[in-house]
Amino acid sequence: MTTDALSPTGRSTIRRGKDRARTDRAELYNLLDGGMLCHLGVVLDGAPLVLPTCYGRDGDTLYLHGSSGAASLRAAEGTEVCVTVTELDGIVYARSVFHFSVNYRSAVIHGRAVPVTGDEARLHGLRTLTEQVAPGSWDHARLPNRRELAATTVLALDLSEAAVKVRSGPPGDDEADLGTPGVWAGVLPLRRSWGEPEPCPLLSPDAVPPAHVQSRTGPIA
Amino acid sequence: MTTDALSPTGRSTIRRGKDRARTDRAELYNLLDGGMLCHLGVVLDGAPLVLPTCYGRDGDTLYLHGSSGAASLRAAEGTEVCVTVTELDGIVYARSVFHFSVNYRSAVIHGRAVPVTGDEARLHGLRTLTEQVAPGSWDHARLPNRRELAATTVLALDLSEAAVKVRSGPPGDDEADLGTPGVWAGVLPLRRSWGEPEPCPLLSPDAVPPAHVQSRTGPIA
Repeated sequence: MTTDALSPTGRSTIRRGKDRARTDRAELYNLLDGGMLCHLGVVLDGAPLVLPTCYGRDGDTLYLHGSSGAASLRAAEGTEVCVTVTELDGIVYARSVFHFSVNYRSAVIHGRAVPVTGDEARLHGLRTLTEQVAPGSWDHARLPNRRELAATTVLALDLSEAAVKVRSGPPGDDEADLGTPGVWAGVLPLRRSWGEPEPCPLLSPDAVPPAHVQSRTGPIA
Repeated sequence: MTTDALSPTGRSTIRRGKDRARTDRAELYNLLDGGMLCHLGVVLDGAPLVLPTCYGRDGDTLYLHGSSGAASLRAAEGTEVCVTVTELDGIVYARSVFHFSVNYRSAVIHGRAVPVTGDEARLHGLRTLTEQVAPGSWDHARLPNRRELAATTVLALDLSEAAVKVRSGPPGDDEADLGTPGVWAGVLPLRRSWGEPEPCPLLSPDAVPPAHVQSRTGPIA
């Protein structure tokens, strides 16, 4: 992991809430590595389209994938996309409605989604995606066959143009509102955690979840 | 709450994974009402831009807001936007990498984001937004003053053109993979829950969170 600064372009320079901008590339990596879902934005017939999808990061490449027949993937291929990953950490209750907010971490990535070609590179992309969502699974499950590979589009997005924004901590109320009696202010944190594994009903009843599933337990950072 | 069907247009008709499509308008309302964050997609300088933001629903109107100086809000004003709300419910472990998936609920809304004008209508929009994120807060906190209202843009998006997609349940493995010995398959659920309220450090130490905050406790559906 490098500690290079994010090198913002015009559109990835944060103008609103500058104090929330993060410029360390390690913060981008941390957020992406902890996430499991992104929102992919493309322009389709002149209008924006935003779809939730999985992703995987390897170095400064973000991989996306999908059915090769999907219109959204076809719209993304070779064109400018925007990929956003957001974690909501809490609700910020302020003394004034105006200062209500949420605590969050977000990464907004701009770039051209390039089709990944060649079996080796495509399998690497799919491995990265699988391991992001379900670490340990690539070496556990059956790997893609010819037909499955042919049915899958893999896209790569360079992480060079990205903006990371973080809000944390208590509300930023106006001085004049601070002493208002009877008005509560603070943060209500939002937590994520893993539930108990739910085995596939078609699995043998004595099948035990493997270590890479069982180790995913409790709170998610 | 109506039980009207969603009336899909070409772009809001789900083509991939049709079995995941939901057509009951009540499912759209349920998902939106339980969510706290959406991803707003706009086209800015010809490229897509996806930003996380709060929203509020009242009937068939979705309200968005932001600083009147924000480029993203200016880009959204009066133009076609896409608003997507997604809840990730779990990771689907399959017997083959190809069938790995996630359980989720998503709503993708297309439409023109119309600026809300007039104090009364704008305050109604802001109330809807505040109550979505922090129910009970509009009557607890100080309401927006002139200056704050002037600094805030409120946009309204009609919910008529929306697509709801839900994936739930176990993996959809191929018949041929079902009996593979030693390979686990199933769902690892992802839970959300509220943490303990964290009072603002500038609050009097004996201040107690009000009922509308204290009642937000435990798991989030």
